[in-house]
Amino acid sequence: MKGVILTLNAGSSSLKFALFPPEGDTPLATGLVDRIGADGMMKLKDSGGGALPLPQGGDYTTHTQSLATALAALEMSFPGLTVAAVGHRVVHGGPDFAAPIRVDQTVLAALDRFSPFAPLHQPHNLAGIRAAIETFPEALQVACFDTAFHRGHSFENDAFALPRTYYDKGVRRYGFHGLSYDYVSGHLAEIDPDLARGRVVIAHLGNGASMCALKDGRSVTSTMGFSALDGLAMGTRCGQIDPGALLYLMQQEGMDGDAISDLLYKRSGLLGLSGLSHDMRQLEAADTPEARQAIGYFIARIRRELGGLAAVLGGIDALIFTAGIGENSPAVRAAVCEGMDWLGLTVDATRNAQNAPVVSDDGGKVRVMVLPTNEELVIARAARRLAVGSERPAA
Amino acid sequence: MKGVILTLNAGSSSLKFALFPPEGDTPLATGLVDRIGADGMMKLKDSGGGALPLPQGGDYTTHTQSLATALAALEMSFPGLTVAAVGHRVVHGGPDFAAPIRVDQTVLAALDRFSPFAPLHQPHNLAGIRAAIETFPEALQVACFDTAFHRGHSFENDAFALPRTYYDKGVRRYGFHGLSYDYVSGHLAEIDPDLARGRVVIAHLGNGASMCALKDGRSVTSTMGFSALDGLAMGTRCGQIDPGALLYLMQQEGMDGDAISDLLYKRSGLLGLSGLSHDMRQLEAADTPEARQAIGYFIARIRRELGGLAAVLGGIDALIFTAGIGENSPAVRAAVCEGMDWLGLTVDATRNAQNAPVVSDDGGKVRVMVLPTNEELVIARAARRLAVGSERPAA
Repeated sequence: MKGVILTLNAGSSSLKFALFPPEGDTPLATGLVDRIGADGMMKLKDSGGGALPLPQGGDYTTHTQSLATALAALEMSFPGLTVAAVGHRVVHGGPDFAAPIRVDQTVLAALDRFSPFAPLHQPHNLAGIRAAIETFPEALQVACFDTAFHRGHSFENDAFALPRTYYDKGVRRYGFHGLSYDYVSGHLAEIDPDLARGRVVIAHLGNGASMCALKDGRSVTSTMGFSALDGLAMGTRCGQIDPGALLYLMQQEGMDGDAISDLLYKRSGLLGLSGLSHDMRQLEAADTPEARQAIGYFIARIRRELGGLAAVLGGIDALIFTAGIGENSPAVRAAVCEGMDWLGLTVDATRNAQNAPVVSDDGGKVRVMVLPTNEELVIARAARRLAVGSERPAA
Repeated sequence: MKGVILTLNAGSSSLKFALFPPEGDTPLATGLVDRIGADGMMKLKDSGGGALPLPQGGDYTTHTQSLATALAALEMSFPGLTVAAVGHRVVHGGPDFAAPIRVDQTVLAALDRFSPFAPLHQPHNLAGIRAAIETFPEALQVACFDTAFHRGHSFENDAFALPRTYYDKGVRRYGFHGLSYDYVSGHLAEIDPDLARGRVVIAHLGNGASMCALKDGRSVTSTMGFSALDGLAMGTRCGQIDPGALLYLMQQEGMDGDAISDLLYKRSGLLGLSGLSHDMRQLEAADTPEARQAIGYFIARIRRELGGLAAVLGGIDALIFTAGIGENSPAVRAAVCEGMDWLGLTVDATRNAQNAPVVSDDGGKVRVMVLPTNEELVIARAARRLAVGSERPAA
């Protein structure tokens, strides 16, 4: 099987991957390697969700060994497999990378320089690229950035009010979840091109969560800024917080950067407020006072940011929910839109309960939609496009 | 002259004060002692703005000495002066103080415990109270809090998405500029009680700046949170910023709490972005690209927060500008309201140029107003009210 595309999302101790055919949008297989360097394990499924066989005694000691094990597993189900390109999810493309790019050593060195901007993610993403270069030396390596979709922001949506030297050295409002916004806005443009040309807010509500304001299909601003911490409260991340609260943690509680980072990334958000779980489904089921307050806070920040994004856009024509919570929680969608008729938002209870593509009333001024996201497909398409573009006849 | 009220706003090296008559809203005198502990100096004016005489060789080595010098100066112009009460501006009343309070040693100790929440202001405010107790031992001491007006916020407008233990220990969204919001909302209730019962946003735009959303005259939420740093960009303060940017400063640039505090409080905001000045008047006059970008950023954050506050209120009935910039910059007001007809905002150019009390079009759905603030008067009235209340006949 020739010319397939592998997508790869490498975390600190995990590799999420999908195998796409030379043409078409449905992956042949999806897989996850977890607990790399510890008691590593792999899951591998076919396009129908059925388990695929795994090799005996797989080696999961490093990202490279894990990827070799994954390749061996894929070859068992897809003999003669030839990977034309590996598309990598890379969290940070810095101020300049505004599109997917073929990775060579120069690009890799450039991406390394953004690691201080995303120390919890970027080094692992790059470890995934290095592992893929070793495992698939003949394949094109393509980096797709979570920041790229947002690189056209105006200065006031790109800067913080710090001395300009910080802007110049890259302390900017990058915005993330760009692959998701790229997919959802592209899908909207296919099914309703007129609406896609208007003022659209996409709420990507997953374990990570952010919102993006779009005009004519382009990102105008986002609720995330320099890091993946800002804006909405998330499963374990704090979202918007007063910088004075961090000064308090530093000056009064004596916490250092690592301790504050651990607090804000891993112990805050829905988990911190509920004391129970980072998972919206568990909180909705638990119904304790703390769980209700955690959900209430999550909703309140979405509503407030929605108003802020509407102000940037000059009102909205569409609100689109996507990602785990956005696609699957009618209660969250209903609560976000409740009493928002001043903004033209309405929700049809029956449609909303069904997670229907359009959940607004027919008479509503603003179209409220539920559109599943597909970040892997954005990566696969970009890798495929660059792979085809690189197949030039030898001179 | 018996039963006069002194208001006092003590900073790290300054004392701002005003002398109010037993009845009436116009101060007899206003004064400022600056550079306490260094080359201290005093300015003292009468109600018409004319300079009042100062004693020879005034002592400005401490807050207490400075206040004694101020008293000596006041006695030169107002012989037989008897101060019934001193009303103090205190930045932080913590989670519980929701109204002005008579200060005794127990209260003073309680207020001391909030110093870690506002280390740049609270200790100096309390030094002012201690100086006044020494200088005016017979007078009632009354503390008026910048946080008190906001203490009725719901949980989602009071908390951050941190583990609940931080909420319990006081890391909350207090909100500030409460004395200003108290004055302006009270004034609105006098001149237009129906409007005051509606959904009102007050934009306090001075060297410090925040916005408050009110319903029926009560604060629902504010753009400031735990500290006076959050929300809008200010003269030298950053306003809203990604917590990840602070982690970057700590982990990548090796800055400690004091260095970050200095950066965010004193070198950011309009000054940081313009590289020129913290003063809106100077930036409007300068018209450099950087000054324009600084103003643009300032405006953009106000607009975005306005949308967020409208979402909390469910739309707005009135937007009120106050404080130095809010009262005196037609350009800022026009830019904030431009293209905001989706929210019902309109501005009449002629009225706006005149800083008229109502600057919206007669046909506009939202009343846009300019109402000067008067924080001293709120303090004086509270001190006078408590002083009268304490004049009970002996048993």
